[in-house]
Amino acid sequence: MQGVLDRLRGALRDDQLGLDDAVREAYAHDDAEWADFAPPLAVVFAESIDDVVAVVHACAATGTPIVPRGAGTGLSGGANATAGSVVLSLERMTRILEIDAGERFAVAEAGVLNDALRAAVAEHGLWYPPDPASSAISTIGGNVATNAGGLCCVKYGVTADAVIALTVVLADGSVARVGRRTAKGSTGYQLAQLLVGSEGTLGIVVDATVKLRPLAGREDRAIVGSFASLHAAGVAVAAISADGIIPSALELIDRTCLDAVAAWQHLDLPTGQAALLLARVDEPGAAGEALAARVAEHMTAAGATSVSRSVDPEDADRLFLARRLAYPSLERLGPVLTEDVCVPRRAVPEMLARIEAIALEHDVTIANIAHAGDGNLHPLIIAPEGDAHARGRAKEAFDRIVEACRDLGGTVTGEHGVGLLKLPGAAAELSPEVLAMHRAIKQALDPQGILNPGKAFPGLST
Amino acid sequence: MQGVLDRLRGALRDDQLGLDDAVREAYAHDDAEWADFAPPLAVVFAESIDDVVAVVHACAATGTPIVPRGAGTGLSGGANATAGSVVLSLERMTRILEIDAGERFAVAEAGVLNDALRAAVAEHGLWYPPDPASSAISTIGGNVATNAGGLCCVKYGVTADAVIALTVVLADGSVARVGRRTAKGSTGYQLAQLLVGSEGTLGIVVDATVKLRPLAGREDRAIVGSFASLHAAGVAVAAISADGIIPSALELIDRTCLDAVAAWQHLDLPTGQAALLLARVDEPGAAGEALAARVAEHMTAAGATSVSRSVDPEDADRLFLARRLAYPSLERLGPVLTEDVCVPRRAVPEMLARIEAIALEHDVTIANIAHAGDGNLHPLIIAPEGDAHARGRAKEAFDRIVEACRDLGGTVTGEHGVGLLKLPGAAAELSPEVLAMHRAIKQALDPQGILNPGKAFPGLST
Repeated sequence: MQGVLDRLRGALRDDQLGLDDAVREAYAHDDAEWADFAPPLAVVFAESIDDVVAVVHACAATGTPIVPRGAGTGLSGGANATAGSVVLSLERMTRILEIDAGERFAVAEAGVLNDALRAAVAEHGLWYPPDPASSAISTIGGNVATNAGGLCCVKYGVTADAVIALTVVLADGSVARVGRRTAKGSTGYQLAQLLVGSEGTLGIVVDATVKLRPLAGREDRAIVGSFASLHAAGVAVAAISADGIIPSALELIDRTCLDAVAAWQHLDLPTGQAALLLARVDEPGAAGEALAARVAEHMTAAGATSVSRSVDPEDADRLFLARRLAYPSLERLGPVLTEDVCVPRRAVPEMLARIEAIALEHDVTIANIAHAGDGNLHPLIIAPEGDAHARGRAKEAFDRIVEACRDLGGTVTGEHGVGLLKLPGAAAELSPEVLAMHRAIKQALDPQGILNPGKAFPGLST
Repeated sequence: MQGVLDRLRGALRDDQLGLDDAVREAYAHDDAEWADFAPPLAVVFAESIDDVVAVVHACAATGTPIVPRGAGTGLSGGANATAGSVVLSLERMTRILEIDAGERFAVAEAGVLNDALRAAVAEHGLWYPPDPASSAISTIGGNVATNAGGLCCVKYGVTADAVIALTVVLADGSVARVGRRTAKGSTGYQLAQLLVGSEGTLGIVVDATVKLRPLAGREDRAIVGSFASLHAAGVAVAAISADGIIPSALELIDRTCLDAVAAWQHLDLPTGQAALLLARVDEPGAAGEALAARVAEHMTAAGATSVSRSVDPEDADRLFLARRLAYPSLERLGPVLTEDVCVPRRAVPEMLARIEAIALEHDVTIANIAHAGDGNLHPLIIAPEGDAHARGRAKEAFDRIVEACRDLGGTVTGEHGVGLLKLPGAAAELSPEVLAMHRAIKQALDPQGILNPGKAFPGLST
């Protein structure tokens, strides 16, 4: 029988095939180096649906696992390669196929960068809300695979809320177009929703149709609070939520993150604060003014050391940029083990307190950034490069944080997906009945088990 | 082997079991009498999850089809019984299990009426947006099964957009709790979303956890336009949408509907108009005023014979009540064959024109109500009782409307579900690859095929 590499050589151009060590190593993992990985047999660069179909046929015929990959910015290891696998990169599929301004949707190939889609639709007066902090470097396909969130999903929803249709290459190489192009639709099962967040384990998403919103009609107002403790910032978050306020962003950055950003970029950031809360509201006119005032009052009541209402949009942009730069800034300090726990909003202060206690107890540095308004926290555990002991302590702290989150009624991943890193947490969280449903659906759509095996949900033995 | 009835008798109280002809006939169909139905073997009234599990076990052991049923207000035949089946009514499961005002969600058993949930959460200052016109009489379980929409989903989404978790009894009698209770969550597949709209074919939903919104912060403004032709009203709809306006409701009622409501209820409705457009915006303050003015301008520009801005909330409520009463008013005139086509918003005027032409050509009465802002039209085809020829012409008109909708890029059902009535339309709409995915998932979760067989998607032979 012809081997998978010969089949791939027969189906693709040489420059679509990465076989040398450097390429295979560069594509061996996404941004979750803490999870297991190994260089794949080959990296293939699809440029069309036909290419993807050809790769799936080659892999199906030889029982070769396929690891689909967008930009490799994932934080859970969903795109980490395994020995003997083929990494299928969709990064060259960068066409925006359609923008329908009247019906307010766009169709983008999987490799389109989130920011590129955002820019393209803005020219039509439209807005694509989901905005992971990685929006400049992550792809729509990867966003769909992980059900990515972002800053504005506290008000405008996550990727799943935007996706209305997908084109997907299935495990047998057939191409299915699931979903709808109309504002509503109830014809058959919601297969597009099943595929969002499935991390390439049920099919390979080659393009996505996403709902857009009008760009006009919103007016940004930023409110920034400084807090002497993480807990006080958490109290403000819980109070804003309990008051029924839905801000368009409510982000937390702690001192460790601010210092790391300041050490890297010259953004003139506040110093000496335990935490900043960055809030935005976008209602226009007097309603927006009133809402911003209420947010500010809650921050003050929670004990903020200072609260400022930004009248200068550049000022607010600078602070929100610091939020976006937090993760890469911290990566400069050492390997980062990223949590993505999501707790009830009222539990945010308690969860932040527990994270601080866990950091002390396990003698690790934990920086905090959070989509606080969603209860979605990103404790980032940092271990110095090459320190095996610190690495061990970091892993212990990771597990303890997951336990604390579950104890408070939370979920192990709010927006990064399970990938590999969160398999143990997912095994504890999902009941045997729910896991059985996962296995049955996986078996139904990928009986050979070649699509990103071992990712997204724990198997029987985990 | 013990038969299904003996098993049911052993598991339930006598008053939970409907075996006489009157009950079996009353539960033989939902509100889609045009579709096929037959009295079931038995009707069972579950009062708890344990009851549902017992019924599933009895039916699984004997290979008996189960037809789950909420209030029987479905319009596509999803709850129509077949000979030899057991109808499983969830109407007695009416408890609201939890309202979490801080986190803004509620957990309701399947038999809770939509309006009852709405009233209960309102006491906590919260709002459940999905509002099918049947909200006073339809259940949350039925709303979930069909992915019901309503008036306000043009701005606030359909049932699927509100559901975050479900408890579901599976085909083997196991109980799975799928979804999350946090604001976000990406742990495993989106199984709750797969189940919404699956019409009881993958599992029996016994309770739903739904997101709520704050009741405060909105201010209703109504704008009512009268039009001398359906087409002109459609032009106004398309113009409002193209301008990037997202109203909180945009409903169309035609003359036939208005006359039918007026003949039944004394609501002091406008007469002599080909169509009314009822729009609402809910932005507070000056922004709402400005938006209402723009909506009114679009109506005028499209040729409205009169446009009024309602300052009197009772006035607006009366007109919106007429919209909700349209369907039962028409049912008084004869059996109603209900369409639920959804087209791109820009195609609304063309679709309305084609419906008028089809009515003329097939010599049938077609009344129109529409969630026009979503492009979701409900042409209601009425045949006089007992007139077999008229009935035949009505069925022809039904098929022609589905064809026209597909020709304009639409989908056969926007919010009522496929049930039985839309199986031929769904067969034309869904590709072989997408149908194969449906069959694979159905087979995976219900290998014996006992859960509402033959509904929701067309089988191989249709």
